Amino acid sequence: MQSLQQKASEWSGVATQDAFGIDETNLFQQLGLQPFINLSTSFYTRVYDDEEEWFRSIFANSKKEDAIQNQYEFFVQRMGGPPLYSQRKGHPALIGRHRPFPVTHRAAERWLYHMQQALDNSRDIDAESKVKMKNFFRHTAFFLVAGDELKNPNHGISPKPGASKPAAA
Amino acid sequence: MQSLQQKASEWSGVATQDAFGIDETNLFQQLGLQPFINLSTSFYTRVYDDEEEWFRSIFANSKKEDAIQNQYEFFVQRMGGPPLYSQRKGHPALIGRHRPFPVTHRAAERWLYHMQQALDNSRDIDAESKVKMKNFFRHTAFFLVAGDELKNPNHGISPKPGASKPAAA
Repeated sequence: MQSLQQKASEWSGVATQDAFGIDETNLFQQLGLQPFINLSTSFYTRVYDDEEEWFRSIFANSKKEDAIQNQYEFFVQRMGGPPLYSQRKGHPALIGRHRPFPVTHRAAERWLYHMQQALDNSRDIDAESKVKMKNFFRHTAFFLVAGDELKNPNHGISPKPGASKPAAA
Repeated sequence: MQSLQQKASEWSGVATQDAFGIDETNLFQQLGLQPFINLSTSFYTRVYDDEEEWFRSIFANSKKEDAIQNQYEFFVQRMGGPPLYSQRKGHPALIGRHRPFPVTHRAAERWLYHMQQALDNSRDIDAESKVKMKNFFRHTAFFLVAGDELKNPNHGISPKPGASKPAAA
């Protein structure tokens, strides 16, 4: 059976060494806190305004400001800054915490579409850091698709067409 | 509903700020790589020799040397060192990766029993670091028990017989 990492690389098209290019330099030291807050604010503003209701609805039970804080605290922690996320919420446990949500291939692509827009419009993140972050996000999104398929006893079989709405949590 | 973090603190008896006392100093810089390798080797030597078959059997499908490497690479990464684990296997995704295993209250206590023994017998980890690591391990073990209960559609209902502590739903 393919590992989570192998599936993530195959589906995302991002090799593992590129996915973790974020670890080559300390992006938090380089950028500071504010660009991360701005990025997550920009990202979730797009998500909560998404014209695609099936995607927007995935986030319907979370407050936008909580979603923003959860995300930038995780990014800061993972990219070399203080462990803000763990101090408040514990281990990131990315697969476990995404369990209530339908993390399909299609949802991953929609997430990445908004993040790409947010990054492209960011003025306080340099071009090289943007490339590293895009690779990390793309690989991670498909890592979570692979993780999501662990929920399905038939995992290994292609995703269901109707898997676009949140499962009962 | 209680959060994972709240359950982890209640069941472990370790407050969040103590659990992440490992982040107050860079333990990897302080200790170096070898003490982590030694600790995981000592831990898994105990686990694979456990007289309690129910616990030993949880690890029966993993090679001891793989279990050792997975563990010390994660510890190194989480405690301030290079992201050895992610570079090889992707995100730690602690809850997702423990999904195949029965992470019960009883299993957490047995895991902690062996880790306590391994730490008590370690000569290359100072006493203060041992305290920080014990708090981190204890809190994390029960965080994973809380994560394990997400698998159970009846989670929130009291744990099965054999669980050693009451759940507070």
